[in-house]
Amino acid sequence: MPLQDYMQLISTDDHLIEPANLWVDRLPRKFVEAGPRIIEKVMNDPSRPAHVWTMEGRIYPYIGLNAVAGKRPEEYGAEPVRFDDMLPGCYDPKARVIDMDIDGVQAALSFPSFPKFAGTVFLQGDDRELALQCVKAWNDYVLDEWCVTAPDRFIPLAILPLWDVAECVKEIHRTATKGVKAISFPENPVPLGLPSFHTDHWDPVFSACEDADLPLCVHFGTSGKPPITAEDAPMAVMIALFGCNSMYATADLLFSPVFHRHPRLKFALSEGGIGWVPYMLERVDSTWEKHRFYQNVNQTVRPSELFRKHMFGCFIEDAHGIENRHQIGIDNITWECDYPHSDSNWPNSRKVVQQAMIGVPDEDVEKMVETNARKLFNFPRAGA
Amino acid sequence: MPLQDYMQLISTDDHLIEPANLWVDRLPRKFVEAGPRIIEKVMNDPSRPAHVWTMEGRIYPYIGLNAVAGKRPEEYGAEPVRFDDMLPGCYDPKARVIDMDIDGVQAALSFPSFPKFAGTVFLQGDDRELALQCVKAWNDYVLDEWCVTAPDRFIPLAILPLWDVAECVKEIHRTATKGVKAISFPENPVPLGLPSFHTDHWDPVFSACEDADLPLCVHFGTSGKPPITAEDAPMAVMIALFGCNSMYATADLLFSPVFHRHPRLKFALSEGGIGWVPYMLERVDSTWEKHRFYQNVNQTVRPSELFRKHMFGCFIEDAHGIENRHQIGIDNITWECDYPHSDSNWPNSRKVVQQAMIGVPDEDVEKMVETNARKLFNFPRAGA
Repeated sequence: MPLQDYMQLISTDDHLIEPANLWVDRLPRKFVEAGPRIIEKVMNDPSRPAHVWTMEGRIYPYIGLNAVAGKRPEEYGAEPVRFDDMLPGCYDPKARVIDMDIDGVQAALSFPSFPKFAGTVFLQGDDRELALQCVKAWNDYVLDEWCVTAPDRFIPLAILPLWDVAECVKEIHRTATKGVKAISFPENPVPLGLPSFHTDHWDPVFSACEDADLPLCVHFGTSGKPPITAEDAPMAVMIALFGCNSMYATADLLFSPVFHRHPRLKFALSEGGIGWVPYMLERVDSTWEKHRFYQNVNQTVRPSELFRKHMFGCFIEDAHGIENRHQIGIDNITWECDYPHSDSNWPNSRKVVQQAMIGVPDEDVEKMVETNARKLFNFPRAGA
Repeated sequence: MPLQDYMQLISTDDHLIEPANLWVDRLPRKFVEAGPRIIEKVMNDPSRPAHVWTMEGRIYPYIGLNAVAGKRPEEYGAEPVRFDDMLPGCYDPKARVIDMDIDGVQAALSFPSFPKFAGTVFLQGDDRELALQCVKAWNDYVLDEWCVTAPDRFIPLAILPLWDVAECVKEIHRTATKGVKAISFPENPVPLGLPSFHTDHWDPVFSACEDADLPLCVHFGTSGKPPITAEDAPMAVMIALFGCNSMYATADLLFSPVFHRHPRLKFALSEGGIGWVPYMLERVDSTWEKHRFYQNVNQTVRPSELFRKHMFGCFIEDAHGIENRHQIGIDNITWECDYPHSDSNWPNSRKVVQQAMIGVPDEDVEKMVETNARKLFNFPRAGA
């Protein structure tokens, strides 16, 4: 039995769709009108107006991009345009627990949808005070409502007001006190107009995360720079290449001062896959061996050592990665479900993991599907 | 003996530095003044002016970017600024043969330097007629001078006048008649302002290559879009990530109509490495399985099948790729030396390959280091 019954699946990358009233209920009254609200808008079908988010007069057309859980691949393509196009588990934490039970998933960390996976939609705001309140409202919703529904089933993740390092630090402290277990951060801040990992700009943020023992989750795509080869390329090209964004983040971080300045900091590469890691570790090491002498990079620590100490990959299905798990680092791998997105195998996650783990020793399976994630997010079994 | 003495190393990716008189000797007289010429220009050291290329008044500062063969890694960093900063093997075919003998390399295909690896510098020209003559002059130099020096040691590669499909076709026919064995092409034409692989624009070019049985070599970086994460990132990040460009080319081509319209066409991913291929083939197949139904992609052939039939990777050192050679396709792998660039192990190539092939059966080694390349480029052993 490659996946034993006693092993609990912990998903390190799921997604929640924000309910319509999330900000209306939580923002100070003066901000409610300008803040994120759901309105109806005719898009393709005049007889069935879409639910869309609006903020400061801007329209955000999709409430739950790619929220296709429960559909067969033959039905993919159309994005959900109204809440009733989706399974309630997308936006209702009680329904989510039921869907997790069906799937055999014990606990999950969920990224935002409307705010984008690292909350970067709030970088667009004209009004920084409104944007800050929006960030706090999302974090409060996750902590006080979503996760509270089933504290042993949901791993709380917070987003940050990325335009202001001092406010980021305050929000890390505030949410850490309330029990947050992870921080969502862009895989690369530069395409968002923010300073790179090679500056000292983020040091207070990273120090705050280190002090609170909070890993940073960098979901692929959070740089706002998807891997597009051509405007007329089918979307399959981009989908197939998204893991390259996690490769970019890996090389960028390993050749940056971040881990040398923050020896306890951890980064999780959310949704990036793991099958590429052995290649990339070999490549960063050979680059370092040949090219470190004339460059502003650390001269003593091999990048692959930094990876094993600081970085974590995750997989949904990744036969090559599982086969080569010891070249990646058996302690650096976590599993993800990706509910409700199209890469997810819901409601068959447990069955798919079972198949994928044939021939893998129990000890390795348990680390990859459960205990590595529990350690990384300080999320022990209830009563443990 | 993992690398038997009878096996000849064939490098599918080397680089030649153009001699100063290449275009001066070959261009029609009216173009000599505006065409590529070497001039001296003071750059860093006033006592030692640099050799730089000039064309139509523009200055191209480096004669041989990264041409560091013979230097130790501790000496890397400074680009060669004069021809006498380089080994003569960089620009002199007779000296190159001697350097190949020292290295134990039997034959090599070399990309251009000043014109960029796919000749894309001539896209910049104000005068298209001059640019066309420049392309032809480079091809004539390679065919009539470089390769003729030792026809069983050099595999001739041609560049194309990419701005004009009809002229591309003519140049393919012209050079094929003269014995060319491969065509250099951009890994992605889009960043160069050219139509993508998803259009029918290149069909005449690809048909001409099919008819002449010429593989297209897409060297990483030839899109003109290097993998840069941040302006202030050390160059090591870019060096480590360049293989992602070949991953982009792979997914872009496999989800394009190119191989369906051109069933005999072959693409070689030059300098892209191979260790990432098993991951990427798994990823393109799973993307195809889940996402083909609503997209304009072929509905019947798995992308990994297309890869095995049409695409070739190459490696310098790539332990993970060699270990997983059968997941890549043992017939889809070639070796490269990369002389005179910094990734090369010259003058120890044979020794390094010897080490890398420990435990690999002779049959597999021979395919990867020699026979796959000979087949791909129709370059049989002399007398065979």
